[in-house]
Amino acid sequence: MGARQPDPQSAEERLIARYFRPLAKHPGAFNLVDDAAVLTPPAGSDLVLTADAIVGGVHFFPDDPPDAVAKKALRVNLSDLAAKGAKPAGFLLSLVLPQIDQSWLEAFARGLGQDADAYACPLLGGDTDRTSGPVTVSIAAFGTLPQGTIVRRVGAKSGDRILATGSIGDGALGLLLRRDPGAAQRWQLSDREREHLADRYLLPQPRNALAEAVRRHASAAMDVSDGLVGDLGKLCAASGVTAEVEIDRVPLSDAARKALAADPDVLDTILTGGDDYEIICAMQPDKIAAFCAAATTAGVAVTEIGGVIEGWVPPRFLAASGKPVAFKATSFSHF
Amino acid sequence: MGARQPDPQSAEERLIARYFRPLAKHPGAFNLVDDAAVLTPPAGSDLVLTADAIVGGVHFFPDDPPDAVAKKALRVNLSDLAAKGAKPAGFLLSLVLPQIDQSWLEAFARGLGQDADAYACPLLGGDTDRTSGPVTVSIAAFGTLPQGTIVRRVGAKSGDRILATGSIGDGALGLLLRRDPGAAQRWQLSDREREHLADRYLLPQPRNALAEAVRRHASAAMDVSDGLVGDLGKLCAASGVTAEVEIDRVPLSDAARKALAADPDVLDTILTGGDDYEIICAMQPDKIAAFCAAATTAGVAVTEIGGVIEGWVPPRFLAASGKPVAFKATSFSHF
Repeated sequence: MGARQPDPQSAEERLIARYFRPLAKHPGAFNLVDDAAVLTPPAGSDLVLTADAIVGGVHFFPDDPPDAVAKKALRVNLSDLAAKGAKPAGFLLSLVLPQIDQSWLEAFARGLGQDADAYACPLLGGDTDRTSGPVTVSIAAFGTLPQGTIVRRVGAKSGDRILATGSIGDGALGLLLRRDPGAAQRWQLSDREREHLADRYLLPQPRNALAEAVRRHASAAMDVSDGLVGDLGKLCAASGVTAEVEIDRVPLSDAARKALAADPDVLDTILTGGDDYEIICAMQPDKIAAFCAAATTAGVAVTEIGGVIEGWVPPRFLAASGKPVAFKATSFSHF
Repeated sequence: MGARQPDPQSAEERLIARYFRPLAKHPGAFNLVDDAAVLTPPAGSDLVLTADAIVGGVHFFPDDPPDAVAKKALRVNLSDLAAKGAKPAGFLLSLVLPQIDQSWLEAFARGLGQDADAYACPLLGGDTDRTSGPVTVSIAAFGTLPQGTIVRRVGAKSGDRILATGSIGDGALGLLLRRDPGAAQRWQLSDREREHLADRYLLPQPRNALAEAVRRHASAAMDVSDGLVGDLGKLCAASGVTAEVEIDRVPLSDAARKALAADPDVLDTILTGGDDYEIICAMQPDKIAAFCAAATTAGVAVTEIGGVIEGWVPPRFLAASGKPVAFKATSFSHF
């Protein structure tokens, strides 16, 4: 139903040639000349596949820098691969645009290329389409790992400890600040703290450097994208267990700590708001030392926040008093 | 930025559990419990990957039956796999919706499940998201083939013959009829002929039954999605050759033949309009007999429409007079 161009090379092809061909460095991408790409997984390996789309006005603000939009789209997928213990192998992109804005596209492709290089996850192919709606970036990402070694949500066992990477709640607080900039003053944040939270919303920091350690040591894992409370609940439900988390042990950034000190209600946002893109995993106690050593080498902070207990009920989050805390909502949902 | 639901199972999870979990029959889909799936390609095989999105108001009409929308989204990807000679292995779905409409979703999932079964291409995973825009269905599909045997656009050689599957132009005429229903009468189409064209637009017929024969016999191949003239041009450009096609040999349905008889201008739509989802391939003459025998077994019509000639220039389409025909546009473009 689109317009037709009296040109042997369509605007769509020119767009792909100009912005995306330079990113297609993998030999199996065939320079984007074909409609399909080829991956030859190493012998004895499984392919891990994941897909996540981000939508303008839902997952990012329409005026977010286009390079950050591209990076977020790729990173939310990289985060899934990391939590499963897989090494990135490449990705396909479906880019749906309301119009061709050359400077937007240039910055988008630049950001995408930077992250494809940084995470060794090359563009393999995809397509571009027009829409009457917002920019929508759908990515399917692929990783490899030795056969049968994927780390699932299933597998956590009573007695396992629960660990979390990085810091929890920054992304959700960054989003809150975007909607309510005055909160920065109420929370008495420094400029740097405000920027830290804003950046953590804008640019997830997927923990791919820790993927191999997760694969070697975790009994179960997932990335936290919809809030710690809800996502730990999903992991526990899948494993048929429950968990107890000491809220005081949940790793917080200085900025989040300051916000929480100024307004205790912020706890709800921190623990249920989503956009963390950290990894939570369950682990046998005797594996924690090796995991922490690997995390130190990888430069990723890991923190023990609680333990796994027999029998599926929603996990309990305990205040310093030992009493369980109730949350308004447990998990981010799009609908 | 979405609404939050005070419920341990979010609306998004209920949606997935209700409509999509029953489709996730592949063991590597883990019942959609995890954020990622696993494929173990058979030893010695390559994985072929392709992604195409379809957008409401662009690739389909908002009031198209939802089961047909689902099938079209999967089939445009299956068509790419077929043209590359790959056997379907599964797909990921990113479904972006303006709202949850239970009856729409039920029909969508039913159609998707029917085709996943019919083409042995199971749902492996994906995600659902909200949008302020139209329904957008992004699919990434995967196939397997013996290592190094993918059929590319590159590889056509002078002396090869060009073959096309099925019939050309029906999809574009079906779309034309959707926009201009009066054309059916001007073209003196029977109800059955009108429905044939409408169906060919609504539901592509990817030629996956012919994939193995394409892999065994073709020097180069692609699926025709943006019009025969432009797509053959892309294949020739990739291969560094040109081609001559005798227009009278291009396979047309009875309905398209009738439309063309009533209005010679329709030729442009037939040859450049797109939405064919047929395969064109280049083939050494001594392989044609075996290919045609395989096509007969597969129940897919194949027709020799021209030949490959040395030196890249846009392919020539010759009228019965032997004179080349010029087209208003060569190829469908979204922009």
